[in-house]
Amino acid sequence: MESDTASSAQPKVITIIGGAGGMGRLFRRELEAAGHEVRVLDKDDWHRWEPLLADVDLVLLSVPIEHVMEGIEQLAGKLGRDQLLADVTSIKVKPIRKMREVHAGPVLGLHPMFGPTTKRLQGQLIVDCGGRRPHAFAWFLETLRGLGAKMIKASADEHDRMMAFVQVARHFASFAYGVHLFEENADLDRMMAFSSPIYRLEMGMVGRLFAQDPHLYAEIIFSSEVGKQQLRHYHNHLGEMVELVERGDKDAFIDYFKNVSAWYGELGRQFLDESSYIIDKLTEYTREPAAEEVSS
Amino acid sequence: MESDTASSAQPKVITIIGGAGGMGRLFRRELEAAGHEVRVLDKDDWHRWEPLLADVDLVLLSVPIEHVMEGIEQLAGKLGRDQLLADVTSIKVKPIRKMREVHAGPVLGLHPMFGPTTKRLQGQLIVDCGGRRPHAFAWFLETLRGLGAKMIKASADEHDRMMAFVQVARHFASFAYGVHLFEENADLDRMMAFSSPIYRLEMGMVGRLFAQDPHLYAEIIFSSEVGKQQLRHYHNHLGEMVELVERGDKDAFIDYFKNVSAWYGELGRQFLDESSYIIDKLTEYTREPAAEEVSS
Repeated sequence: MESDTASSAQPKVITIIGGAGGMGRLFRRELEAAGHEVRVLDKDDWHRWEPLLADVDLVLLSVPIEHVMEGIEQLAGKLGRDQLLADVTSIKVKPIRKMREVHAGPVLGLHPMFGPTTKRLQGQLIVDCGGRRPHAFAWFLETLRGLGAKMIKASADEHDRMMAFVQVARHFASFAYGVHLFEENADLDRMMAFSSPIYRLEMGMVGRLFAQDPHLYAEIIFSSEVGKQQLRHYHNHLGEMVELVERGDKDAFIDYFKNVSAWYGELGRQFLDESSYIIDKLTEYTREPAAEEVSS
Repeated sequence: MESDTASSAQPKVITIIGGAGGMGRLFRRELEAAGHEVRVLDKDDWHRWEPLLADVDLVLLSVPIEHVMEGIEQLAGKLGRDQLLADVTSIKVKPIRKMREVHAGPVLGLHPMFGPTTKRLQGQLIVDCGGRRPHAFAWFLETLRGLGAKMIKASADEHDRMMAFVQVARHFASFAYGVHLFEENADLDRMMAFSSPIYRLEMGMVGRLFAQDPHLYAEIIFSSEVGKQQLRHYHNHLGEMVELVERGDKDAFIDYFKNVSAWYGELGRQFLDESSYIIDKLTEYTREPAAEEVSS
């Protein structure tokens, strides 16, 4: 076992719990490329946990979000107080609290801001929410930075609050919109025939959600308390705006619009430029729209 | 004045009302390129309407949506019954009805599915909702097709119903989300620091709305009756989903998810591919995220 101050150049032994999953495989590949020895403990390996956990420098938990709490609990009493314990779950308050409960040693909560289909850490964002004895993770964080990851620090509270906006409410809004189209039995194919690139992209952002794993989205949305509060607020705000449209109050609509616009400031203009660039790219990518020729 | 059956090769005289606006300028440029003579009647030219309207083959109305009804009314009694009258407003039931009221001759309602910053008609979608005596517009539609526009036919009713989904509800959802962020006083810059390309794109689709003209969006949202009904349904559906999350009913969430997913079918997979391609492009485009390095 290395001491906290061991040189980052020295290879370490890392066990990835959930190492056979997409995210686990990515970390395994990258950490091995950085010269460390990586062992994998997946769900069928728990009967032989002892050699996989004993004496390793770092235990990295990379399990589906719905299994993270039981995954951490299974570690109770199995780690020495100088072994490092870290997780890569997309919520942070609960797993960090639980890791601190079951483990007396160094704890680190990370959130890699990318999906399991990502090929390399190069250029990817990872949020570092700390945990306990952050100095002990110096070599690990240096390894991640060496692999090109961009680290950003936040408290677990701030992280979860931000994610309530960035993930929970946004994914939920797309989910609810898809449900709306489904309940109204909208004619999707015909809608697509009517869609310019920008509408197509808007619809695409909704549609892509439903081509992915429902459990992942359920966990992201259901596991954040602050996220749930957000959703209620969102529903209320949307209701106020619907009422405004129903009573035909165009002036109030335009006032709101201008206030939000001023609040966005320069960022709105930047978004417009970015999305216009994207729309051009999308126009290049998409096949010809299924427009029927007008016979006149 | 040409007869209805005049050859499309023969140059026509066209007056564009609102020809100084973005969309008007585009049509002027393109119709001139196709060999027609184009005159412009803008809001300051109404005192000299007579030479601009008399004897022209086609009057093309391209005014901001909030002025289209009064624009059509101003034409009452000014057009001969063989002159063609067309509009390019993004709603269709009301303007077509009004054009048929004020004009006894051929009427055509078009909706170009692109913004006024578009440079050329080549590859762009235009919805043709007819109006009266469609055959009289043969040369005009042939000109548009010759310029590369893709024509798609729909009744005015179907058009407005589709637009309630494709435009009204979608724009409104982005608007309401921006209002929500504003009311919650979300820290946008910090959110962006936390955003992976996909979240950035999602946020960008909201932000770009607020960098544009509030009046345009107000008109699109307020002028569609079927759109307003949509918004109430949307609010109700969203409310049902919020309740489902609040009572922790993950199974129901996943059931809804799977139903919508099956309903999307192949289109969901296609959207995922398209948006993944777009995200790669966006990653190429965006500057480095403003991630602060972790000092460890």
